[in-house]
Amino acid sequence: MNEPQENGTAAGGGRPPMRDALITAAFELFLERGFEHTTVEDIVRLAGVGRRSFFRYFPSKEDVVFPDHERCLADMTEFLESGDGEEEPVARVCDAARLVMRMYAADPAFSVRRYQLTRSVSGLRSHELAVVWRYERTLAGYLRRRLHHWSDGTLRADVVAASVVAAHNNVLRSWLRSGAEGDVTEQMDHALQLVCASWGLGAENVSADAAGGDDVVVLVAKRRTPMWRVVREIESTLEEG
Amino acid sequence: MNEPQENGTAAGGGRPPMRDALITAAFELFLERGFEHTTVEDIVRLAGVGRRSFFRYFPSKEDVVFPDHERCLADMTEFLESGDGEEEPVARVCDAARLVMRMYAADPAFSVRRYQLTRSVSGLRSHELAVVWRYERTLAGYLRRRLHHWSDGTLRADVVAASVVAAHNNVLRSWLRSGAEGDVTEQMDHALQLVCASWGLGAENVSADAAGGDDVVVLVAKRRTPMWRVVREIESTLEEG
Repeated sequence: MNEPQENGTAAGGGRPPMRDALITAAFELFLERGFEHTTVEDIVRLAGVGRRSFFRYFPSKEDVVFPDHERCLADMTEFLESGDGEEEPVARVCDAARLVMRMYAADPAFSVRRYQLTRSVSGLRSHELAVVWRYERTLAGYLRRRLHHWSDGTLRADVVAASVVAAHNNVLRSWLRSGAEGDVTEQMDHALQLVCASWGLGAENVSADAAGGDDVVVLVAKRRTPMWRVVREIESTLEEG
Repeated sequence: MNEPQENGTAAGGGRPPMRDALITAAFELFLERGFEHTTVEDIVRLAGVGRRSFFRYFPSKEDVVFPDHERCLADMTEFLESGDGEEEPVARVCDAARLVMRMYAADPAFSVRRYQLTRSVSGLRSHELAVVWRYERTLAGYLRRRLHHWSDGTLRADVVAASVVAAHNNVLRSWLRSGAEGDVTEQMDHALQLVCASWGLGAENVSADAAGGDDVVVLVAKRRTPMWRVVREIESTLEEG
């Protein structure tokens, strides 16, 4: 069989057609007869390609369900490394997380089908956990480098990375559960803003309205006031300004 | 073979001796010849028990590496359900997370050996991720119930649960990596305090020194001051009080 020399990872902008055909065939079979009862042989037969083609693109049957994560992880790493080191670190990892959201939002119908599939197959859920873990460690690694001069830098880096991933996944999953209804970008902005307000380290955290002013805020609070109330109070003051 | 009728989960305070023997034998073999090259048959032979005994205690070979997590998860669920609903929710999940730390701290040598093992075997790492995920969902489930009246309650619940787990695991892993040197309880308190200060919803967040006073704190800050600086400023003021 004379197969075109496509490369699974260096595909640049789009997906190669053969890879796409394998993904389409795999999903059709997974939904029809279940993930466990579908073999790689079934997939290549339906896609009309050779078995070796499958393994050129996907290390395993699980990987065909998450075909774009490797590229997205590489994009994320590149994005984080491309900064000049002056960016506010928490906002930067939020922007890095948005790359994942955009990958899902680029093909909502496919993302919804995959979400339904991963909900029902335990083997896929653990594979997904491993993928999410790699994103989280990528974000945490960047933060650890940026916060290395803090005495609790690794702790803070890990907590912020986990917060960003949790906020991102809360929005993404709720959007997928709804069948990709509504504006995921707007919901994501709100969620990541919550993380930035709590953990952010730079001037980006004050609201945009207020960022221009150099005037002062005076806050008077009872000593027993919980910290979250203090933060809320300051935030609402800044928003009114 | 006439085996005593021990029960793997309802063991109460201690571990049944046969279960302990299986764990000891399994770890000896895992460290000697590797996890992948050890079979359940090898383990039961070394422990001197029948194959069925193994599966009475452990659903799979992976589970023998994490023998106490099921009980700890059950303890955590029970602890979270036992409250009167008046507890500050973030402090409550921090206390729930401490149950996991105590399980590790109860047998430091075993915990260190297991940590070394899970670092080197990829199959165990994904099993561990799944276990961590179950803890995180247990904490998030509690928080979602407690924060159901917040408009962004599920988002906040997920982010706080992830923060608590990340802080907990940062401290736990660094302690295990050090060979269980130093006071893990003290390090854990510091890490969880960071999470409470950022996400906590009650008076528990102000430092204990200040909790008795009803006097006021006046903070003057430039409008552009990042939120983390404001929080730090207030915290240090409270500590001085």
